Amino acid sequence: LRTKLPRVGTTIFAVMSQLAAEHGAVNLGQGFPDFDVPSRLVDALARAMRDGHNQYAPMTGLPVLREAIADKTARCYGYRPDPAAEITVTSGASEAIFDAIHAVVRPGDEVIVLDPCYDCYEPAIDLAGGVAVHVPLDPQTFAPDWELIRRAVSPKTRMLMTNTPHNPSGAMFDAGDIQQLADLLRGTDIVLLSDEVYEHIVYDGRRHESVLRYPELRERAFVISSFGKTYHCTGWKVGYCVAPPSLSAEFRKVHQYNTFCTFTPAQAAFAEMIADEPEHYETLGAFYQPKRDRFREQLLTTRLKPLPVPGGYFQLVDYSEVSDLDDAAFCRWLTVEHGVVAIPLSPFYGSPPVGQRLARLCFAKNEATLDAAIERLGRL
Amino acid sequence: LRTKLPRVGTTIFAVMSQLAAEHGAVNLGQGFPDFDVPSRLVDALARAMRDGHNQYAPMTGLPVLREAIADKTARCYGYRPDPAAEITVTSGASEAIFDAIHAVVRPGDEVIVLDPCYDCYEPAIDLAGGVAVHVPLDPQTFAPDWELIRRAVSPKTRMLMTNTPHNPSGAMFDAGDIQQLADLLRGTDIVLLSDEVYEHIVYDGRRHESVLRYPELRERAFVISSFGKTYHCTGWKVGYCVAPPSLSAEFRKVHQYNTFCTFTPAQAAFAEMIADEPEHYETLGAFYQPKRDRFREQLLTTRLKPLPVPGGYFQLVDYSEVSDLDDAAFCRWLTVEHGVVAIPLSPFYGSPPVGQRLARLCFAKNEATLDAAIERLGRL
Ligand SMILES: CSCCC(=O)C(=O)O
Ligand SMILES: CSCCC(=O)C(=O)O
Repeated sequence: LRTKLPRVGTTIFAVMSQLAAEHGAVNLGQGFPDFDVPSRLVDALARAMRDGHNQYAPMTGLPVLREAIADKTARCYGYRPDPAAEITVTSGASEAIFDAIHAVVRPGDEVIVLDPCYDCYEPAIDLAGGVAVHVPLDPQTFAPDWELIRRAVSPKTRMLMTNTPHNPSGAMFDAGDIQQLADLLRGTDIVLLSDEVYEHIVYDGRRHESVLRYPELRERAFVISSFGKTYHCTGWKVGYCVAPPSLSAEFRKVHQYNTFCTFTPAQAAFAEMIADEPEHYETLGAFYQPKRDRFREQLLTTRLKPLPVPGGYFQLVDYSEVSDLDDAAFCRWLTVEHGVVAIPLSPFYGSPPVGQRLARLCFAKNEATLDAAIERLGRL
Repeated sequence: LRTKLPRVGTTIFAVMSQLAAEHGAVNLGQGFPDFDVPSRLVDALARAMRDGHNQYAPMTGLPVLREAIADKTARCYGYRPDPAAEITVTSGASEAIFDAIHAVVRPGDEVIVLDPCYDCYEPAIDLAGGVAVHVPLDPQTFAPDWELIRRAVSPKTRMLMTNTPHNPSGAMFDAGDIQQLADLLRGTDIVLLSDEVYEHIVYDGRRHESVLRYPELRERAFVISSFGKTYHCTGWKVGYCVAPPSLSAEFRKVHQYNTFCTFTPAQAAFAEMIADEPEHYETLGAFYQPKRDRFREQLLTTRLKPLPVPGGYFQLVDYSEVSDLDDAAFCRWLTVEHGVVAIPLSPFYGSPPVGQRLARLCFAKNEATLDAAIERLGRL
């Protein structure tokens, strides 16, 4: 059997979680919290099941959840998408990214991705027959170089994928980036895919520049988010896509023949949760900020150098003082010899920059977990 | 925006469920029960959440669930697939079908489908760049004509899709069909996709001819099933694919970048349920048989003619005594004028046979629902 995805192995997140389990290491690798879901969300889900919400949801998502997403979007970004024509619930942001790509990318089309980026982007583009065109972000600040991106645009460019707050770096677009993005796309028919799953995890009073704030951008964009990061339940796999009616129509054609619909009781539970605690979104940054601040301070006592973290729940560290290994080897060594799992950055690149010595640590963890990790990292 | 799927509208199941809601009709359309999930399954899921199983499951599925699926397969079909290399949990059988097609079908490849077939097959083939080659089943018995299928095979044939028990007709493969299937595939490199979601809903002591019983077939097959039909929870969307290691490896490459993983607490709950009630599978036919028998008897008092139902939970009826409308128009008329939703057969065909007067009724319903439907159908 000749493989369709010759460059694809097992995703680094599965590899490192497996290695973590084998070595009983402190797992700061794959991005998920080790504290639990709000109990009222668990209660709401249990109630939805007992109330009999156990059969197929509508293909586009439970109406009550799409209404709640519309309300939440209006509150956060001053724009209320039409729940009937512009919002589609999916089995996690992953499925939404896959569906959006398959909805518009045809064989030979080019899709611009900004490296480093989440490792599911390129295989999905490949499967659709498209070609990923990699443009590097700044290797220190992870800011986009708009001139470089402009030069990557060709008549074949079908889509541009952006991600703010950014995985793995935590970098965030500012108003200037949005301006440049709008300038770049104006007059083209390039579709924007804006991955915003960390939208509510932002620090130091910064503002998340959602594409949904900007009419000129959102009218050509798939904006994708999920509840996994926002409600500490990465295993619940409920995401959504907001897009104008014409793009949503194409998106839904893929979605309805991919997963068709998503676990019904969780949809009911999220709808209830959003309506009951509209302020949750605004408090999430304040919930994570002490974790980030404490973890960074503790890292300064080690030989790892923490980079700035404007958003998200990942801390990049420069390990060049500790080791000359490449990042994959370093992360394996760190797991096996020092009992801490980090994620190397190279899988986030088309071609990883030579000599980059960065690793990603997830700080969405209890203090005890982070303390245990710091204790081990202190011995480096 | 030029659509990639020009022939795709909203799936008939969504259309008819929408129409059902608008007209307060008795909904025997989309296939889902109107009675509830076993309460111990609900309890198991609630417990899994409270025990903290709320983060990403492994990409291939919770180990305990894959073990349970292996045990269950061994018990039912005398073959125990390797949970590590041959079983992958998905977000419903829908995702599994989509992933399997995308794992092996390349642009220009042909995929043989037997009409009528479930309406997600062809759009998924289209998206992968493949070409669906439609071969009709017998219009009365819905048995495959193996000679006709053999003639459809070409050097470009990459996959053959089969479905037993069959949606929409309930027809089932017998041992002779399996023999013919094996003869047909022997010496080719055609991959088999066997959709077996109704595997445990069989009547009159008939035996489900799972591809997993036959070494020669299973070594080249994706065998797909789900828990939705088996545990009365179509909205829970947990399915799985059993395939040999080489096919599973390709399948997982797609799955890991499509949905990545599936709602964790339900995986834990199904694992527990399978282990605790291994006999559930063998009793499902006996649970549905009285429903089928009673519904058929009642239909004989109407002017609709019921066709035989060897398996599954759909009853085809010939409405030619009642109406000359084509099936789409008939089902719409039946909903609007008589308050009963049925599913037309034409969406299950590449090109629907002219003059066919069949509609599908789902009898996975409480007696009261079926009685209400019969009362209305009696007035035709
Ligand atoms: C789907 S596994 C990856 C989880 C994640 O978001 C990350 O670690 O970057
Ligand atoms: C995914 S909606 C269709 C449900 C079903 O299996 C059917 O009605 O055939």
